Amino acid sequence: MTKMTVGIIGAGRIGQLHAEYMMSTSSIELKGICDIHISHLEGTIFEQNVPVITTDPSILLEDETIDAIFICSSTDTHCYYIEKCAEAGKHIFCEKPISFSLEETEAALKKVKELGVNLQIGFNRRFDTHFRKVYQTITDGKVGNPHIIKITSRDPEPPSEEYIQSSGGMFFDMTIHDFDMIRYLSRSEVKAVSVAAANLLGDCFKKYDDVDTAIITLTFEDGSIGVIDNSRQAVYGYDQRIEVFGEKGVVTADNERLSNVQVATKESVILDHPKYFFLDRYKDAFHKEVQQFSEAIINHQPVPCTGEDGLQAQKLAIAAKLAWKENRPVLLNEI
Amino acid sequence: MTKMTVGIIGAGRIGQLHAEYMMSTSSIELKGICDIHISHLEGTIFEQNVPVITTDPSILLEDETIDAIFICSSTDTHCYYIEKCAEAGKHIFCEKPISFSLEETEAALKKVKELGVNLQIGFNRRFDTHFRKVYQTITDGKVGNPHIIKITSRDPEPPSEEYIQSSGGMFFDMTIHDFDMIRYLSRSEVKAVSVAAANLLGDCFKKYDDVDTAIITLTFEDGSIGVIDNSRQAVYGYDQRIEVFGEKGVVTADNERLSNVQVATKESVILDHPKYFFLDRYKDAFHKEVQQFSEAIINHQPVPCTGEDGLQAQKLAIAAKLAWKENRPVLLNEI
Amino acid sequence: MTKMTVGIIGAGRIGQLHAEYMMSTSSIELKGICDIHISHLEGTIFEQNVPVITTDPSILLEDETIDAIFICSSTDTHCYYIEKCAEAGKHIFCEKPISFSLEETEAALKKVKELGVNLQIGFNRRFDTHFRKVYQTITDGKVGNPHIIKITSRDPEPPSEEYIQSSGGMFFDMTIHDFDMIRYLSRSEVKAVSVAAANLLGDCFKKYDDVDTAIITLTFEDGSIGVIDNSRQAVYGYDQRIEVFGEKGVVTADNERLSNVQVATKESVILDHPKYFFLDRYKDAFHKEVQQFSEAIINHQPVPCTGEDGLQAQKLAIAAKLAWKENRPVLLNEI
Amino acid sequence: MTKMTVGIIGAGRIGQLHAEYMMSTSSIELKGICDIHISHLEGTIFEQNVPVITTDPSILLEDETIDAIFICSSTDTHCYYIEKCAEAGKHIFCEKPISFSLEETEAALKKVKELGVNLQIGFNRRFDTHFRKVYQTITDGKVGNPHIIKITSRDPEPPSEEYIQSSGGMFFDMTIHDFDMIRYLSRSEVKAVSVAAANLLGDCFKKYDDVDTAIITLTFEDGSIGVIDNSRQAVYGYDQRIEVFGEKGVVTADNERLSNVQVATKESVILDHPKYFFLDRYKDAFHKEVQQFSEAIINHQPVPCTGEDGLQAQKLAIAAKLAWKENRPVLLNEI
Repeated sequence: MTKMTVGIIGAGRIGQLHAEYMMSTSSIELKGICDIHISHLEGTIFEQNVPVITTDPSILLEDETIDAIFICSSTDTHCYYIEKCAEAGKHIFCEKPISFSLEETEAALKKVKELGVNLQIGFNRRFDTHFRKVYQTITDGKVGNPHIIKITSRDPEPPSEEYIQSSGGMFFDMTIHDFDMIRYLSRSEVKAVSVAAANLLGDCFKKYDDVDTAIITLTFEDGSIGVIDNSRQAVYGYDQRIEVFGEKGVVTADNERLSNVQVATKESVILDHPKYFFLDRYKDAFHKEVQQFSEAIINHQPVPCTGEDGLQAQKLAIAAKLAWKENRPVLLNEI
Repeated sequence: MTKMTVGIIGAGRIGQLHAEYMMSTSSIELKGICDIHISHLEGTIFEQNVPVITTDPSILLEDETIDAIFICSSTDTHCYYIEKCAEAGKHIFCEKPISFSLEETEAALKKVKELGVNLQIGFNRRFDTHFRKVYQTITDGKVGNPHIIKITSRDPEPPSEEYIQSSGGMFFDMTIHDFDMIRYLSRSEVKAVSVAAANLLGDCFKKYDDVDTAIITLTFEDGSIGVIDNSRQAVYGYDQRIEVFGEKGVVTADNERLSNVQVATKESVILDHPKYFFLDRYKDAFHKEVQQFSEAIINHQPVPCTGEDGLQAQKLAIAAKLAWKENRPVLLNEI
Repeated sequence: MTKMTVGIIGAGRIGQLHAEYMMSTSSIELKGICDIHISHLEGTIFEQNVPVITTDPSILLEDETIDAIFICSSTDTHCYYIEKCAEAGKHIFCEKPISFSLEETEAALKKVKELGVNLQIGFNRRFDTHFRKVYQTITDGKVGNPHIIKITSRDPEPPSEEYIQSSGGMFFDMTIHDFDMIRYLSRSEVKAVSVAAANLLGDCFKKYDDVDTAIITLTFEDGSIGVIDNSRQAVYGYDQRIEVFGEKGVVTADNERLSNVQVATKESVILDHPKYFFLDRYKDAFHKEVQQFSEAIINHQPVPCTGEDGLQAQKLAIAAKLAWKENRPVLLNEI
Repeated sequence: MTKMTVGIIGAGRIGQLHAEYMMSTSSIELKGICDIHISHLEGTIFEQNVPVITTDPSILLEDETIDAIFICSSTDTHCYYIEKCAEAGKHIFCEKPISFSLEETEAALKKVKELGVNLQIGFNRRFDTHFRKVYQTITDGKVGNPHIIKITSRDPEPPSEEYIQSSGGMFFDMTIHDFDMIRYLSRSEVKAVSVAAANLLGDCFKKYDDVDTAIITLTFEDGSIGVIDNSRQAVYGYDQRIEVFGEKGVVTADNERLSNVQVATKESVILDHPKYFFLDRYKDAFHKEVQQFSEAIINHQPVPCTGEDGLQAQKLAIAAKLAWKENRPVLLNEI
């Protein structure tokens, strides 16, 4: 096996992004795309190059020439498709979060385990060049045991009101990436979560019982501490920074700027902005996660980011929401 | 009045630092130094240049030619001397923290108020070039209302065991500066404090019921959030950074490095270290706080950092200790 | 016309790079590759996807369905193929330098002009994100009229001895890019060239009457001054920086690093290295120059970097060599 | 001898700067100041603290309690006072340049040598923290033998017309510092000098047969190359950078900014400006050069920057002027 054959369920922004990458890489063959609506694919390069475009997922699930399914549909359908894929013997790449319900996720993961397929969760940031370098610095022991892990994660602008309503809330939609990243970097599990959250961007989040700004503090089983700061609106760009402070030093990853150009005049000394759009910022990471998934499948290796990772991140989102609601530290084993 | 005349009580490291600066500036005349031990001043420039060196504070307090007293003695004597100075009609510059006891501080401040002398607390970092620029950026409205204020404050190495024992604990000894800074930058009062703290540097702090690492989260009355991260040991240098994120942007102050030199070789690209010693990092700030105190006294203006500021920082240290002990958010009005 | 159809002559490193990009973009259709040797293409994605792979250039030149030819063969064949392409009515993209002989270049450009085809020269750096931003800063008038233009351009390691022998010398092989860039940024023509050059990397260049290190100073017709510094060996990575200093300010483009990660320990504060390999550093620029060529051809617009640009850069290389040999400023109109 | 006693001749900006520093340091005793005009010193701290303020230099020269004289008068008087000081047996600190005439300088240095006094030239930049670190990086062998040394040295704004007239021209007044620095860093002597210079700031320099912008290229006896770029007007601040590129790497010193603060908004990401005024930028360096002079005198050690250094810098200025006038490389041994 030198190629992985793939079907995609869900042809929204992320589904199309994965599809484009698959079409440009020789180790993946994209055999079909399924969505509940397919009219938006008419006249695109997908229509020209992908053999099957359908509204019926069973066509992909029953296609014996397909090795793996990418689940890029809405979050509330993830677990349903995970189970269907597992039953069909397909390896699975599922976007984050797995679901909003712990029971659903656990049932789906149980089936995945029983039926022995591989499941990778789409925590793309683990594959970002800068964050991967931070991870390697830690695992190389260069900064010693982590004492404090800090993640700054701020979106450039709030999503649409429609999106907010179905997002599951900031902790599920946005912080979920940071929860995975902090577990990934810590290599220890979280013991407790505290939250200070606020509505500082008017009522748009508040009216859906959601927040727009938060400091999330985590204590780890190894005694170290983590802190995530989130905002739904960083007007200067997508702010994605990490700092891991340990007994032997500190490693930091700064933002990617649009260019390395500096302009100094009488009035000011100006740098270029951080990249604004998440697809620009994490373009390479989106590619690498798919590439590494394909390598794992082709070589019968474990996938680099598992269903268990998705489950733990989901638990952290649940704990954060509870900590915020009850204004108290929440132990992970309460969840 | 074109000069302020001064006596110093307490000739330790900070007392001597202030004395040296006073001797180099034309607007201050240092008339006397008092300490319980004075043998360490023999043969120094102080002996040569300061008219009175004594172990008896009443000599300074009763000297009618002295306008102001600098209290640089140990914390447990601060309130005693504040009251004595107020009774003697002297203006007061007192090192931080005012005391370990809220009752003592409040009594001392009451006397200061009744007797109408000026009292400035030695929160020198307010006078640091970089942090002052952050403050001005905020007050100029350039980043809008603050949403998240972050302070990183890490010492390069732990103090001696003897010092730890009498320090009052990390929140009183070290975080007190950050509590003042975050109030100064926020321009709103703190409503509640949460703490995640740890002992990650062995037992040296633990055995005195103290911590060495902490994340302190603060919610402010204006709805914004603050977070301070502290460590007693940043092996790469004194780590002193600030970030204020607001509705219109973000302002950050980075560390001062030993030099702006970069060396790139086949093996590595190396920058110089952050300054290591607090007296190097904040040398100018120590000078400026004294200069501005003298200007306020000479011109009958309010001092830039008051007893009330000292009291609020002390309350925050008490709240942080309680929040840590009881592992819960503590409201400031509980204190 | 919504697509440009292309044949490539010369399937070395650059030819293959262009071919790969063409295969990934929908606006270009790669119809054939020609090289004097084609065995190295067996079993590659080119063999699988490109309709014609041949050793006979006439097959591409005579193919009426081909709009444009990319000339990526060795420099001594460029002018021959430029003329052949022009005669066949093909638009031309030719790698730099056009040739080592001014007469040959002028004859080829004459034919291109007579026969009315488009010719773009492969000065890819004009399309680099950072340098393009420098250019726009200048054309936007933000730094005013340029007074001093500085280019630092240093290769990470010397090429092979075989390459050195046929390279035409450092000025033709390496500085040619900088000559084009400085003309591009200056928007004024060069009046005179001076050179201080050296052999500091042993004899490997000297024995072919070549240099490995140089400072090239240029005076422009508008009175401004330029300076290029070159080295064949920057052990810390590919060093590619630009600075344009003008009456209203200065704009600089710094190197791209492998990551934005910084590691601070007791021993050192380390940044990541500049990118090492020119294909990594300029990957996007190589893509963009091809993309803009295709857009120009499809839309019947002028190409962004013409034969005249190639000619001027070649004249500057000739002038630099003469200035070095005769140790004197050489006027461009001597060439 | 634990203190050096000093007289200052010339109480302009630099003379006063040195005087202030001397008054704040315990290893120097300032015994007298002489200037042709002394009314501007009335009511200053100098009048209050310096025993002798006089218009008669012989009072200082004949004062047997004075060890050293600082010559801070106008350049055309330097050599006269150097000889007078040497005859009086005084050690000498002389501001740069020594003179505009090679004959005068050589005669003065001859007398200094014969009479065995010490002479330090005021090339303060050698004592700058950043440049000193560059120097140490080189002498530690970290970047190997230098191949290219680059100095960027640009004033924030042109001096007054009156100053320009008596400045001796840009090479003598401004580049002289860079000539000394490049010799200091190279540790090899210059063999030849080339210049490309321009008048880009209107006629203010041109009418005094002077230039405002220049690229000066130097070849060293060890085969390496240096380049200095100068401008009389960098509107964004005093631009003082150094880069030494060698066989094993590169070391750079960047500008000092007014603060380490960065402000990012929707419109821009802004850094603070480089320091603007040379007395701010080099304040510490001015102090350190005096301190090291005093240490050398007190401990009977050689001074760190000699008359020979002053002479060589002067020769380079002469060579640069000739190279510019005759538009050709000038050999140092022509001078």
